[in-house]
Amino acid sequence: MFRILLLLSLFISTSHASDFCVADLKGVKNPAGYPCKSHVTVDDFVFSGFRAGNTSNAFKAALTPAFVDEFPGVNGLGFSAARLDLDVGGIIPMHSHPGGSELLIMVSGQITAGFIATDNSVFLKTISKGDLMIFPEGLLHFQLNAGNTKATAIFAYSSTNPGAQLLDLALFGNNLDSTLVQKSTLLDAAQVKKLKGAFGGSY
Amino acid sequence: MFRILLLLSLFISTSHASDFCVADLKGVKNPAGYPCKSHVTVDDFVFSGFRAGNTSNAFKAALTPAFVDEFPGVNGLGFSAARLDLDVGGIIPMHSHPGGSELLIMVSGQITAGFIATDNSVFLKTISKGDLMIFPEGLLHFQLNAGNTKATAIFAYSSTNPGAQLLDLALFGNNLDSTLVQKSTLLDAAQVKKLKGAFGGSY
Amino acid sequence: MFRILLLLSLFISTSHASDFCVADLKGVKNPAGYPCKSHVTVDDFVFSGFRAGNTSNAFKAALTPAFVDEFPGVNGLGFSAARLDLDVGGIIPMHSHPGGSELLIMVSGQITAGFIATDNSVFLKTISKGDLMIFPEGLLHFQLNAGNTKATAIFAYSSTNPGAQLLDLALFGNNLDSTLVQKSTLLDAAQVKKLKGAFGGSY
Amino acid sequence: MFRILLLLSLFISTSHASDFCVADLKGVKNPAGYPCKSHVTVDDFVFSGFRAGNTSNAFKAALTPAFVDEFPGVNGLGFSAARLDLDVGGIIPMHSHPGGSELLIMVSGQITAGFIATDNSVFLKTISKGDLMIFPEGLLHFQLNAGNTKATAIFAYSSTNPGAQLLDLALFGNNLDSTLVQKSTLLDAAQVKKLKGAFGGSY
Amino acid sequence: MFRILLLLSLFISTSHASDFCVADLKGVKNPAGYPCKSHVTVDDFVFSGFRAGNTSNAFKAALTPAFVDEFPGVNGLGFSAARLDLDVGGIIPMHSHPGGSELLIMVSGQITAGFIATDNSVFLKTISKGDLMIFPEGLLHFQLNAGNTKATAIFAYSSTNPGAQLLDLALFGNNLDSTLVQKSTLLDAAQVKKLKGAFGGSY
Amino acid sequence: MFRILLLLSLFISTSHASDFCVADLKGVKNPAGYPCKSHVTVDDFVFSGFRAGNTSNAFKAALTPAFVDEFPGVNGLGFSAARLDLDVGGIIPMHSHPGGSELLIMVSGQITAGFIATDNSVFLKTISKGDLMIFPEGLLHFQLNAGNTKATAIFAYSSTNPGAQLLDLALFGNNLDSTLVQKSTLLDAAQVKKLKGAFGGSY
Repeated sequence: MFRILLLLSLFISTSHASDFCVADLKGVKNPAGYPCKSHVTVDDFVFSGFRAGNTSNAFKAALTPAFVDEFPGVNGLGFSAARLDLDVGGIIPMHSHPGGSELLIMVSGQITAGFIATDNSVFLKTISKGDLMIFPEGLLHFQLNAGNTKATAIFAYSSTNPGAQLLDLALFGNNLDSTLVQKSTLLDAAQVKKLKGAFGGSY
Repeated sequence: MFRILLLLSLFISTSHASDFCVADLKGVKNPAGYPCKSHVTVDDFVFSGFRAGNTSNAFKAALTPAFVDEFPGVNGLGFSAARLDLDVGGIIPMHSHPGGSELLIMVSGQITAGFIATDNSVFLKTISKGDLMIFPEGLLHFQLNAGNTKATAIFAYSSTNPGAQLLDLALFGNNLDSTLVQKSTLLDAAQVKKLKGAFGGSY
Repeated sequence: MFRILLLLSLFISTSHASDFCVADLKGVKNPAGYPCKSHVTVDDFVFSGFRAGNTSNAFKAALTPAFVDEFPGVNGLGFSAARLDLDVGGIIPMHSHPGGSELLIMVSGQITAGFIATDNSVFLKTISKGDLMIFPEGLLHFQLNAGNTKATAIFAYSSTNPGAQLLDLALFGNNLDSTLVQKSTLLDAAQVKKLKGAFGGSY
Repeated sequence: MFRILLLLSLFISTSHASDFCVADLKGVKNPAGYPCKSHVTVDDFVFSGFRAGNTSNAFKAALTPAFVDEFPGVNGLGFSAARLDLDVGGIIPMHSHPGGSELLIMVSGQITAGFIATDNSVFLKTISKGDLMIFPEGLLHFQLNAGNTKATAIFAYSSTNPGAQLLDLALFGNNLDSTLVQKSTLLDAAQVKKLKGAFGGSY
Repeated sequence: MFRILLLLSLFISTSHASDFCVADLKGVKNPAGYPCKSHVTVDDFVFSGFRAGNTSNAFKAALTPAFVDEFPGVNGLGFSAARLDLDVGGIIPMHSHPGGSELLIMVSGQITAGFIATDNSVFLKTISKGDLMIFPEGLLHFQLNAGNTKATAIFAYSSTNPGAQLLDLALFGNNLDSTLVQKSTLLDAAQVKKLKGAFGGSY
Repeated sequence: MFRILLLLSLFISTSHASDFCVADLKGVKNPAGYPCKSHVTVDDFVFSGFRAGNTSNAFKAALTPAFVDEFPGVNGLGFSAARLDLDVGGIIPMHSHPGGSELLIMVSGQITAGFIATDNSVFLKTISKGDLMIFPEGLLHFQLNAGNTKATAIFAYSSTNPGAQLLDLALFGNNLDSTLVQKSTLLDAAQVKKLKGAFGGSY
């Protein structure tokens, strides 16, 4: 059997670096992602942070990401995930993911979800436990608890880091000049002022 | 306001074909996937087939796919999903996905799962509700119910059609000459004969 | 010399189909684009539609695209272009391109342009003739004539069909239920009603 | 409103690294490009170097690139640009771009441009202000001022670093053995000697 | 064992279309390649056309391609191959492959090969049986029999259809106006006339 | 001629880094590969290690890789190669390549080769000198000397690092618990014990 091993050594790389590339989060990213961690264990491929999020907030909602920065094992693999918790009446407000498409997988409860295509048509549906729904890359969408119980869902993304641009935050949660907000959205000055107040933007 | 619409018409494509490409399953695939369906509704983006699978079989297991052939909305988006049901003692036997990586998302129960890297190291873990585990593209892996209750999980894949090559079926479930099976695996003739019998291959 | 041609025939494909793939717009797209046109001439690679657009509208702006549907020669090449005309006071309101990044190339005049990153920081600059500015894929951005003369610019995109989602149209120019608009944006009911009127959405 | 911010913090990455990756030119490239710069401002997305180039040379031409080495903001975004100035009688001689396709956008003047496909067919056109013309990746092409005034154009490329292989320089501007040049091109020895002299190659 | 088969049916697609996509050469290509053939056999994955080519020509050379049009099995797989035969004194003249990199694998004999980078540096080497040499995508290169016996080699390409642009044919083997050839290459009129004669171009 | 050089300097990058990216094997990989070596010579593009491998082993086989770790010049180019030597009666046992498709190019002798698709169909053929055969990414396959003489072949891969998962080693050559091997493969305990002994796995 010694001779079997002789041959087989030819097949085996000295590392498994071609199978995967767990992120070394202390390394510097480039457009392909993080550098590969040199020593990996099974725990690099397991994520245990999907507990129920804290929904004691204005949106009665919590979003727990397992993107590459939280789950380094997805580096280079082209997917990631997140957990959604929506209390009764909760909502994930209008937003988009610049870097990837989203797949919503219902675990419990009922959600009304919608997205808007670039031809301006609306795709709206109320979905329940076991249903899946797609939100294509970069399109505005939202999810609203449509039932009388908490709703829980899993998101899968076609990217290790899909990003999220929340509409209200982008418009009202920063130092973008209020006149420019008004001109570029046609919202009334009073409306901009009110929401800048709510989202912490400078007016 | 008429004039607003004049400008805006310049922005809007006559179709939303650049946002997504729902598969026309009657069309002919090429390496990029199926042709785009010409008329789509929200139901093209919703999948409702994730019911509990029938686990009354030798493996006490059921796997319900939502790949592009079952869920045409994922065409061109680079992901898909599946549902796993494992009875007590159930197992998804050794297999690999040639076309994509797998992300296991535990919904209930306990699973012992493992994969083997090309440097021959083993990555093995028992995971529970809420845990995620990665199985990189093309590597052999398996999942076994490790608890006293049914286990349910969701799989996300980094491909619209990851494929699955089940080891026993590949070796024992077809007309591959038994002598070639023995030579290429070093399994004993009796073992090959026994499993060819079980999996329906010609001996 | 006859023999030179003998050899060289081995090098030459019977078609140039591997060099490019001009779109046959009557064919059916798949995720990789349109089928290739069978007979092409130089005119398939030339686009002459970049005349000054009609800016007699509420935004005093015109956007003339040369995406794959207008310029079939870009099919499969990963880029496209558009021309922007902004009268004094004109603006291209807040929008994003789900399918590609944008490169603005100033030809004449002055423009104040901005985009907002997913960490909510604002990138704002006033640029002039000869300047270039980047707007990364999927991020909200706008362009405003900042000078006393017409402004003209060219856009290049990293996609043959970047798409464009204009914020006001997505929110106010369709049949998306007004209550859902309010809940998902926190805009006041009166504001939603006013803009739905302006953009033609059903209230 | 404090509670709004609580939720929203879940959405916001601590950095915008997933939106873009401005090149740190002091870092080491890999096949995906440069490492990402850690601190960016709007000036990383703006390029102001597109002034008229110096055309006082034998070709009466100037080419001013904004590739990733001049414009680090394009890193990872899949496009770049250049400015072309051609005096009356000027020419950009026969060359190809190994790494990307080219889109010529006429700003002023008249240019006769051509490319040659691998089936050896010629695509030739005289184009004017406002016209676009495509030169597919890797194919030999040239551009010649065809009018009585200076011609100015913008190039967009489907790559952050398309490269350029100028035919005369590749053949005559280096130490490639003259006999090998003759054998591999069938040019006469005298012709090779003359052009090696002109382009600085060793004979 | 009946129950084993019950489960396993869940794993098996009704077709193997996700594993490969053999080209249906009668179908219409798009940028991703040819449509998939519906019924395949092992012969779709085997190519038997690599016989010694006819080298009775001016270059004493023969090139036998197994690109997608000759070997439909490579469709969508990102590689292809060719066979090279060079008689004593034979040469594959200066050319480039716009669509892919080339890997030369020496089977017998000796070859002097070179390529020129875009910074104009020359990479030149004489290689023998068993040696490999790389020619990166889009760069000018040539191969010359450097020994006293026939040389045979295999080429692998990083594309199913790398294309080939042979310099002399591109310049002298078509109807490109001779004055444009001279201006864009700085070759003398007499040289252009002579080679147009040899390569069959119209003068 | 000084003026020619003035213009041309505009065309030439200070490095050839956009043409290729030879691996610096001492650098840290990320999902796109190794960092680029700063100073390269022609020897970085030449590999001379394809000598006949040592086949004095149980499989009478030798496999000599020229993947990126042995041949740094392929970094970023999407291909690599290997040499196969099979004595009379020799075999490369059942295995798969998770990262790329394989192209077998017969140099001498006769080989019976087969692969198994995910629909469980078998593709089997005996091939001879000059034949090519494709093994699509991730599928189980094997190669067996089918003649009375040594067989030699070249493999090309559609990846710089295709990896190889040898079935017997993955199952029997590591510390994977024997009960788990039995459950996940349905092999008998005695068979697992015997092969664990042969391949060095812990029982």
